[in-house]
Amino acid sequence: MIWNKGRGTQVLNLLRPKTTVSAHCDLPCGVYDPAQARIEAESVKAICEKYAANEDPVFRARAIGIKEQRSQLVKEHLWVLWTDYFKPPHFEKYPQLHELFNKATKLAGGGGGTKSSMDVKTAEDLLAAIAEIDKIFWETKQA
Amino acid sequence: MIWNKGRGTQVLNLLRPKTTVSAHCDLPCGVYDPAQARIEAESVKAICEKYAANEDPVFRARAIGIKEQRSQLVKEHLWVLWTDYFKPPHFEKYPQLHELFNKATKLAGGGGGTKSSMDVKTAEDLLAAIAEIDKIFWETKQA
Amino acid sequence: MIWNKGRGTQVLNLLRPKTTVSAHCDLPCGVYDPAQARIEAESVKAICEKYAANEDPVFRARAIGIKEQRSQLVKEHLWVLWTDYFKPPHFEKYPQLHELFNKATKLAGGGGGTKSSMDVKTAEDLLAAIAEIDKIFWETKQA
Amino acid sequence: MIWNKGRGTQVLNLLRPKTTVSAHCDLPCGVYDPAQARIEAESVKAICEKYAANEDPVFRARAIGIKEQRSQLVKEHLWVLWTDYFKPPHFEKYPQLHELFNKATKLAGGGGGTKSSMDVKTAEDLLAAIAEIDKIFWETKQA
Amino acid sequence: MIWNKGRGTQVLNLLRPKTTVSAHCDLPCGVYDPAQARIEAESVKAICEKYAANEDPVFRARAIGIKEQRSQLVKEHLWVLWTDYFKPPHFEKYPQLHELFNKATKLAGGGGGTKSSMDVKTAEDLLAAIAEIDKIFWETKQA
Amino acid sequence: MIWNKGRGTQVLNLLRPKTTVSAHCDLPCGVYDPAQARIEAESVKAICEKYAANEDPVFRARAIGIKEQRSQLVKEHLWVLWTDYFKPPHFEKYPQLHELFNKATKLAGGGGGTKSSMDVKTAEDLLAAIAEIDKIFWETKQA
Repeated sequence: MIWNKGRGTQVLNLLRPKTTVSAHCDLPCGVYDPAQARIEAESVKAICEKYAANEDPVFRARAIGIKEQRSQLVKEHLWVLWTDYFKPPHFEKYPQLHELFNKATKLAGGGGGTKSSMDVKTAEDLLAAIAEIDKIFWETKQA
Repeated sequence: MIWNKGRGTQVLNLLRPKTTVSAHCDLPCGVYDPAQARIEAESVKAICEKYAANEDPVFRARAIGIKEQRSQLVKEHLWVLWTDYFKPPHFEKYPQLHELFNKATKLAGGGGGTKSSMDVKTAEDLLAAIAEIDKIFWETKQA
Repeated sequence: MIWNKGRGTQVLNLLRPKTTVSAHCDLPCGVYDPAQARIEAESVKAICEKYAANEDPVFRARAIGIKEQRSQLVKEHLWVLWTDYFKPPHFEKYPQLHELFNKATKLAGGGGGTKSSMDVKTAEDLLAAIAEIDKIFWETKQA
Repeated sequence: MIWNKGRGTQVLNLLRPKTTVSAHCDLPCGVYDPAQARIEAESVKAICEKYAANEDPVFRARAIGIKEQRSQLVKEHLWVLWTDYFKPPHFEKYPQLHELFNKATKLAGGGGGTKSSMDVKTAEDLLAAIAEIDKIFWETKQA
Repeated sequence: MIWNKGRGTQVLNLLRPKTTVSAHCDLPCGVYDPAQARIEAESVKAICEKYAANEDPVFRARAIGIKEQRSQLVKEHLWVLWTDYFKPPHFEKYPQLHELFNKATKLAGGGGGTKSSMDVKTAEDLLAAIAEIDKIFWETKQA
Repeated sequence: MIWNKGRGTQVLNLLRPKTTVSAHCDLPCGVYDPAQARIEAESVKAICEKYAANEDPVFRARAIGIKEQRSQLVKEHLWVLWTDYFKPPHFEKYPQLHELFNKATKLAGGGGGTKSSMDVKTAEDLLAAIAEIDKIFWETKQA
């Protein structure tokens, strides 16, 4: 999986469009960026790793609570992209997009997603789903 | 001003460290990224531009309210960096850092900052201050 | 469109089905109910009506701000249903469901939806979309 | 106790009164509905049941945290009814109303209410108190 | 009305009672203080004064939005005192307490209270009601 | 350390300075008061004490979660003072002020502060830092 890290690999960046990313509030201002969801998901993954390495009960209780919030933020950032950024022509061109977003937000939820799971693997699956969204997002920005 | 755009220029990226960005929740998880403040500030700037171009009173009332929230998010993301990411050795190495953060958060506030001003220039000043913070941030990540 | 007002007469209540409604928090607790989205959308509609009838500038500024929040709540309640309640078999049985939710949440948003529009008609379109979702929801509960 | 489930059968809907429910935001928009408090309280009850049936420590930690939030939402929805919907003439006609609301909100709190108790019985007492409020509410709507 | 400004001179502090103030979160931690409601209400009053003195439309739109939030905080702080601090024996001893709280929270609301009114006098009435609550609160703490 | 409890006796009130406290929202309204941070920090301290005295696992899980929120509120109230109340001339006159705020907000955080520590001593250190800020704050108000 190749990420767009707020940095990314050199190769990918050389090919990237230079246009400024845009729209995420619902004015809409036109500034959207999947990096917002990705940063929260990286936090979720880091929390799972730290949880596994630390058996202190206070630390673990805090980790569970904070991971809940960060997973929620992932869901919210993804929902905004799905509803506010993507338009009917995008869904026509990428027929898998609805399911991809539905799967990704479920992966950040309580029914087996990163809210309920302490498994680093679940967080990685979430990051992979966000990466797929990110790839499509940037393709549509180029179009 | 050269930005780290979630993309950045090619030249800068070639020189960038490959380490993954890290810590922003207060577990702490170790994932921090000034991109969070920058994205909100870009939104603030876009709102000012759209406000200037649209005299509809409902649009303008919404723009003022949303810009207030986005400016607040800028402040919160910056405060987290200042308190949670930066440590005493950083403040020693970068003696201007306290003032820089104080100025940047004031630039997102109500006393002449982007909360009270509709001026695109104020949003650009805020973006420039965040860019300075961003530069120092990535230097400390390399160290 | 006949709404399910959350209220019947005593007589009607005696005839009511006893099945418990189910899951909306992300434990998940299993209590979901489209009434949550509908109540907020009714509030949005009432705000549009009151706005049209009152030219006081303070009242109007407040109405615009409050309608923004209530529209946001509609979006959040709908997103929770889409991601957390509905499962792959539902989407198979109701292939229009993704688009219906995407359209409904856009109708509560800023790009022509109830956040940006003061038009009672827009709020009615939103209520109609929620009613469609409500119908499918209760069909799946009975299944 | 007969609840008003926010859902009847098609047949029942045909017989439903057409009066619009009314006011819950503080414009005020005039849309209030005790169903909002009830749905959250049903979630609280379901969480207590699931907690009793599942000894996994991560699940239990999450349940405690989420029940705290849902109980808080019950309190907020009830406070809004007490302050914003009910007027002096209502308090005259129903002299028990102040105590009823005070008791109901305490039942959703931390001093023996559903925030601190994992007991299903406490959640049921809360639901019963909300049902009493609901009954009075709809009487005042008919008047 | 003499307020309890949260501030005395050094000399006065030496004479201050040492009793610890007490409970406001819903653990409950036992720290309550009507100063929280009062500070927000003072902010509301100051906003009304500044609004009257400044006709800039952006300033006025911001003032209306911020006053809405501060009034909401007043309501929340008062509701917490009413539900969480005050117990049945207090309500017996101060039979006016329910009405006093109901009136005070209405004074911070949208139906003629400080949310809808830009009138400094309304904010002063709110402050007077909080002062009455404050007086009773401290009597009960001494008992 | 003598605290400024937000409460004196009637006699003391007669002697109280009449100056109005000032600005904490970002209009700015001009009402600031370090009492807001102090009250939350006192809550944090009380939670640590109650935690130590109660081994019930549900109580302890709730205490950890609530202390997290109250510590966050301390940070937010302090950040507002640092960014919005204090101006360049204050930082010139009190050159230790930046570090004092940075230390105080770290003391309410997750890296050894009151978010991560259950130790009453940490909460006392936080209260002492707020007391230092409070002292400087009131000196600047008198100037």
